[in-house]
Amino acid sequence: MEFKIAFIGFGVVGQGLAEILIEQKEALKELYNFNFKVVAISDVMKGSIYNQNGLDLQKLLDLVKTTGKIEDYPEGIKGWDSLQTITDTNSNLILEVAWTDLTTGEPALTHVKTALQNKKHVVMTNKGPIALAVRELLSLAKEKNVEMRYEGTVLSGTPALNLGLYNLAGAGITAARGIVNGTTNYILTEMEKGMDYDAALKQAQDLGYAEADPTADVEGYDALGKIVILANTVMGASLKKDEPSCEGITKITSEDIKKAKEDGYRWKLIAGAEIKNDGSVDAYVRPEKIPLDHPLANIMGPTNALTYSTKYLGDVTIVGPGAGRAPTGFALLTDILDINRLLSKS
Amino acid sequence: MEFKIAFIGFGVVGQGLAEILIEQKEALKELYNFNFKVVAISDVMKGSIYNQNGLDLQKLLDLVKTTGKIEDYPEGIKGWDSLQTITDTNSNLILEVAWTDLTTGEPALTHVKTALQNKKHVVMTNKGPIALAVRELLSLAKEKNVEMRYEGTVLSGTPALNLGLYNLAGAGITAARGIVNGTTNYILTEMEKGMDYDAALKQAQDLGYAEADPTADVEGYDALGKIVILANTVMGASLKKDEPSCEGITKITSEDIKKAKEDGYRWKLIAGAEIKNDGSVDAYVRPEKIPLDHPLANIMGPTNALTYSTKYLGDVTIVGPGAGRAPTGFALLTDILDINRLLSKS
Repeated sequence: MEFKIAFIGFGVVGQGLAEILIEQKEALKELYNFNFKVVAISDVMKGSIYNQNGLDLQKLLDLVKTTGKIEDYPEGIKGWDSLQTITDTNSNLILEVAWTDLTTGEPALTHVKTALQNKKHVVMTNKGPIALAVRELLSLAKEKNVEMRYEGTVLSGTPALNLGLYNLAGAGITAARGIVNGTTNYILTEMEKGMDYDAALKQAQDLGYAEADPTADVEGYDALGKIVILANTVMGASLKKDEPSCEGITKITSEDIKKAKEDGYRWKLIAGAEIKNDGSVDAYVRPEKIPLDHPLANIMGPTNALTYSTKYLGDVTIVGPGAGRAPTGFALLTDILDINRLLSKS
Repeated sequence: MEFKIAFIGFGVVGQGLAEILIEQKEALKELYNFNFKVVAISDVMKGSIYNQNGLDLQKLLDLVKTTGKIEDYPEGIKGWDSLQTITDTNSNLILEVAWTDLTTGEPALTHVKTALQNKKHVVMTNKGPIALAVRELLSLAKEKNVEMRYEGTVLSGTPALNLGLYNLAGAGITAARGIVNGTTNYILTEMEKGMDYDAALKQAQDLGYAEADPTADVEGYDALGKIVILANTVMGASLKKDEPSCEGITKITSEDIKKAKEDGYRWKLIAGAEIKNDGSVDAYVRPEKIPLDHPLANIMGPTNALTYSTKYLGDVTIVGPGAGRAPTGFALLTDILDINRLLSKS
C-alpha cells in the first residue's frame, strides 16, 4: 500500500519528521518497502495546503523558513481547516502534531476521534488525547480496524512505549520506573557539578531544555503525564492524571546532592508505576536516592531512561533521548514503519 | 490462527519456554489473542512424541524431571526423528532449540532449512544457522512467505536484536557497541571487588555462568559470534565469523582494573560494529577502558547491554539479562508473539 499522509500541525515535530522523510525516502522504500506521499498539511498559524497527488516536502520546509506561510505553495487547494483536512482529503494516515492541552486534550482529541471515525490510521506525539482518553480511542481504532500509535508521547523517539507494548509482551511486566523528564535530570546533573538550583534552571532555560515557566518540569507534572500514559498503556491501568502522588525537585538542595554522593547515592526524579498484589496499579513521581551502581543512577544530563521489571526477564532498561526535533520526528516514523510492517502482511 | 508448535530439542531453553507457556496460556490468549497447542517434541536424548491434537506440556515437563524420557508420554506417535517431526507433523511453527555448532551449524541448519522449505515459521535461539547462513535463510523464508526469527541469539530475551531491526528501523543506525557476554563481565566485576582472575573465573564456573572450558567466553569468541549476527542482521553487513579482530580478557590484570578505576575508567569487554564511510562494516571484540559516566561502564555482573548509535536519535542503549532459563525461553516467546501480531492483520 501507499501511505497518503496529512500533517495536522506543522511545528518542530512535524518539520523534524519531514526532514527525515526527505533524506530517507529512497532508503525507506528499499529497506522497508515503505511508500508514501504527503498530500496535506494544515497548521493553524501557517495555513493549509492539499494536493491529492502529493506535495513537495522540501518546498514546504523552505516556505516555512522564508515566508512562514504554507499557503504560498504554488499548487493545490488552500484554506481547509484541520477537520476538513482530516475528512475531505484522500489521506489514509493522519499525523496529529498540533499543540498539547493536558486539561481538555483539544483540539487534538477531536482530530484523533475524527480521523479514526473516518477509518484513517493515526500517529501522534501529542500527550493530550492519550493522557485523557487512551482507552476510548484504542477501542474506536479497533472498531474501525485502523491503527493508532503514540510512541512519541514518552521519551520521544526512544522506543520505551513500544518496548513495553510489543517487545516485552508476555514477559510479565510488574513495574516501570525511570527518568522521563530531561529538564530536571539536566538540572540535577549540573547541581552535582557545583551549580545551585537557580543557576542550573537558568542554564536549562538558556539551552532550550526548560520553558520560561518551568513549573510542569520542576514540579513533576510532565513526568506524571508520561507515567500515567505508560501505566495505562503497558500495565492495563486506568489512572487519571491527578491520581498519582507527585513531588518535583524544587526541595532538593546542593547539600542533599553532595551528601548522597558521599554515601554512594545520587538523587534522581523518578516516575514509577507498580502493579500491586490486588492487580491495581500504583504510580508516583518523586525524587529518590539511587545507588550509584544502578543503571538509572548514571543517566546524566537531558538523557532519559526507563526500567521495566518483568517476571521472566528481570529488569530491562532502555536509555535514550527524551526530546528534540529529530528524536521526536523519528517517534512518528517508528510508529508509521510498524504500521507499514503490519499492513504489508495483509 | 492457531499456532501448532513443534519443539526440535527440549533442553533448558525449550523447557524454559514451556514453563512460561503453561503459566501464561490464558493471559496470552486474552491480551494478545495468541492461541496455540504444542503438537510435537523431538529431542535426540529424550526421545520424541507427536499428537496432532496437542500434548500436555506439564505432563511432558514432569516426565523430563522424573524418567527423563519424553517417550514415556501415554498417547501419541513416538520415535520420529527431528526431520520427520518437522516435515510430517501438522505443526506450522518450528522452535529450533537443539544444540549449537558454530562450525557447521548442524544439525540446526538442516532443521531450519527443512522447516522453511515446508512453509513453516521458524523461531530459534541457536546461533549456528544465523552466524553461518542468515542471508540465505532469510531469503528462503521470504520466498516461502513464512517468518524466521532469532532474537534469542543475542542477549537472550532482552530485545536487543528486534530493537535494532524493528523499533529503530529508519533511525539510521551507524554503530552498535556493547557488553554481550555475561561471563566475562561477571569476572571483570569480581576482579574489581578484589578477586584475581583465576578465582573470579572459578566462581563464574561454580555459578554456572562459565563452562568447564571457558575459552569461548574469555577469549571473546562468544561475543564475536553475537556481534557478527548483529552486524549482518541489523547493519546490512556480510561478515564471516573469523573476519573481525577478537581479543578477550585474559591479559587484563587486577592491577589494570585498579589503575583504570583511579583514572575514572572501567575495563569492559566490548563487542562493536561500525559502518564506515565506504559503507562496509567493521566489527571487533576487545577490552576497552570506558569512562565511568558512560552507560556501559556501569553494567555489572552477568548483565548485558548494547548501545546503538543512530543518525536521528543519537545513542539508544538497552540493558538486560544475557542468559538464563527463563530469559532465553522468553526470547522464543517475544518472536512468536510478534509473528502472531503480524499474522493477526492478514
